[in-house]
Amino acid sequence: MTQLEIMGAKAKEAARFLMTAGAKKDDALMAIARALRANSAKIIEANNIDIENGKAAGLTDSLLDRLRLDEGRIDGMADGVEQVAALSDPVGRVLEGRTLKNGLKIEKVTVPMGVIGIIYEARPNVTSDAAALCLKAGSAVILRGGKEAINSNTAVAGVMCAALEEAGFPQGCVSLITDTSRQSATELMQLTEYLDVLIPRGGAGLIKSVVENAKVPVIETGVGNCHVYVDKSADIDMAANIIFNAKTSRPSVCNAIETVLVHADIAKEALPKIKAELDKKNVEIRGCERTAEILGDCVVPATENDYAIEFLDYILAVKVVDSLDDALDHLAKYSTGHSECIVTSDYESANIFTESVDSAAVYVNSSTRFTDGGEFGLGAEIGISTQKLHARGPMGLNELTSSKFIIRGNGQIR
Amino acid sequence: MTQLEIMGAKAKEAARFLMTAGAKKDDALMAIARALRANSAKIIEANNIDIENGKAAGLTDSLLDRLRLDEGRIDGMADGVEQVAALSDPVGRVLEGRTLKNGLKIEKVTVPMGVIGIIYEARPNVTSDAAALCLKAGSAVILRGGKEAINSNTAVAGVMCAALEEAGFPQGCVSLITDTSRQSATELMQLTEYLDVLIPRGGAGLIKSVVENAKVPVIETGVGNCHVYVDKSADIDMAANIIFNAKTSRPSVCNAIETVLVHADIAKEALPKIKAELDKKNVEIRGCERTAEILGDCVVPATENDYAIEFLDYILAVKVVDSLDDALDHLAKYSTGHSECIVTSDYESANIFTESVDSAAVYVNSSTRFTDGGEFGLGAEIGISTQKLHARGPMGLNELTSSKFIIRGNGQIR
Repeated sequence: MTQLEIMGAKAKEAARFLMTAGAKKDDALMAIARALRANSAKIIEANNIDIENGKAAGLTDSLLDRLRLDEGRIDGMADGVEQVAALSDPVGRVLEGRTLKNGLKIEKVTVPMGVIGIIYEARPNVTSDAAALCLKAGSAVILRGGKEAINSNTAVAGVMCAALEEAGFPQGCVSLITDTSRQSATELMQLTEYLDVLIPRGGAGLIKSVVENAKVPVIETGVGNCHVYVDKSADIDMAANIIFNAKTSRPSVCNAIETVLVHADIAKEALPKIKAELDKKNVEIRGCERTAEILGDCVVPATENDYAIEFLDYILAVKVVDSLDDALDHLAKYSTGHSECIVTSDYESANIFTESVDSAAVYVNSSTRFTDGGEFGLGAEIGISTQKLHARGPMGLNELTSSKFIIRGNGQIR
Repeated sequence: MTQLEIMGAKAKEAARFLMTAGAKKDDALMAIARALRANSAKIIEANNIDIENGKAAGLTDSLLDRLRLDEGRIDGMADGVEQVAALSDPVGRVLEGRTLKNGLKIEKVTVPMGVIGIIYEARPNVTSDAAALCLKAGSAVILRGGKEAINSNTAVAGVMCAALEEAGFPQGCVSLITDTSRQSATELMQLTEYLDVLIPRGGAGLIKSVVENAKVPVIETGVGNCHVYVDKSADIDMAANIIFNAKTSRPSVCNAIETVLVHADIAKEALPKIKAELDKKNVEIRGCERTAEILGDCVVPATENDYAIEFLDYILAVKVVDSLDDALDHLAKYSTGHSECIVTSDYESANIFTESVDSAAVYVNSSTRFTDGGEFGLGAEIGISTQKLHARGPMGLNELTSSKFIIRGNGQIR
């Protein structure tokens, strides 16, 4: 057995314990939160090594900021774990049930996934966030973070494992892969005998690598080429306001918009107002020819590629379309199925858009920035699924469970 | 673009039409049913070629029987399509919803998967069964049947496509891959740009190949190493009756049992009665040493492998265990997570078993043969999932849908 297979076998064994651990899970989570706070100095010390290594490796300031842990952030991680403990148990909910004609009583009940793998990048807080959610959902978790955060992750995982052991939980409930080579990631993606699901959390490159290489079931998360379509009947001020918010409130996240489509009938009036808003944050506009005709030289000519990518920056692609149908065609071609919005005052346009757009979250007259587990009221979020299997959109604790049928009889045969 | 990519692109285009086709789907299904009946002679002619080829290739009688179509079976296929048309639409169900504090109205609604791939073996009836279910669920379907049935499948798919075209449906709603090479199957498994989910229907070899090679999301189906555990408090006559039914009513199917575990305290009394039942169908018993001590020379010594495989035949592995815990350990090691049963009269044993066994269907005092979409009241069945993601156990129309969030506002920004 490889080292990872040994880790997988231990996790699978731990999963059997967790499956019926009930409220003991909450005690363990509270112990983890306490241990994180009590060991903050040790964690910060380890984090300092990552920060120094990161500086030496020339990481950008924003990456260094994501990587950095201090008292406040560790306190926030502990708070997060406590909040997960306070949520109701997603395991054991009866989803449906009935009595069959032959007297069999059948019910469909939520159960833990078993062993969940999480592959993520340079944010060490994911180590405790993801572990807490998986534990609460009754699953063992195998974590594989980015190499930039390896010292921090090792420290955080060590603290969590010690707390779990003290709470009487078996080894293997939480495991961290400390080998950060590409090969260890690939091996995790193919650990079919032990892994029930793998959730990658990161950028487009990571997601693509997982889709290419994984043999275990995967939930794809995150990539969002999101759109606002301004219908001919739109309230223009509302449209400008939503576009400004969806583009500039946090351009680096997946629910920020990348392209605005404007109906030709309203473009002459709407585009200057939209631009006036975007100018407040110096957003670069990459537009089609008709956009340039209306807005003038400030418009950078948009290429095909500009409609396809996530800028994740103060850049917005703009296209004038002749109809709602043309907007739907554009979305069918370029959307990554994350979040799209129509701004309209027309009842039928709103209905057609919500019914026809094939994305995880479809908005009428509101910002795509709401696509988030917290905003949707899910309590916590493990990621945002952009695939159609199992979970779509923000995933909370419920999406980390599976189900089984329990059938009770008194001798029935078929 | 390869031929399969062209097929995928057409299917994706057709999926846009199907997404909002509503009750028109039922009209199309009724047209397909009529067309199957009207063209039965043509389908039987094509099927005769497959049967002749199959005989020449030395297919077993049972395989030839699965392959054979006659008037009655084609009528059955048409009936099946009509039954699917009569089911309620799985698309557009509101799964949950609420109004957030900021006034946003959010709901989670079922939507079609998009494009579904089905890989199957030599049963030509799957061609119409699977296509009908996918269409009803609002998805386009790409079918890839076994080479033994290629002429029958081509005829059935041709009749369906003609009926769909006449009903005004676009090309691409139903496609059949006529290249039955291994390579075409692999290409389908990796058609990530066009396929939203792939469902293999067949034996362990097919499932394994899909898990090894697929890059698209997959729902694993079918492999069932199912068990009955006879607790020390069991009603022995009930246990013998359930074991006889679960082993012999149809040994070739996935919900038939392969191993019986018997509590040591009851083994001496129970095993002879169980054997007496099984003798009616000359079931071979492969047992542990303790089983052989009780039942004598008729017992073939069981190997490790006998506990791991599906016999799919009149063969049963038997093991005497010392406790419920030992039974649970055995299941954790050998079960494929399909269906398991406890026979018991003890309240606590029943609870522990249903809570601790990690299988799609967990039974108390009833035959595992009930694990079936029809028996569970799902209306129709596309397969039985043995994975934990998305669907587990018998899958009906609902399991062929995804969901999306629709959020309605009046200008909300974050």
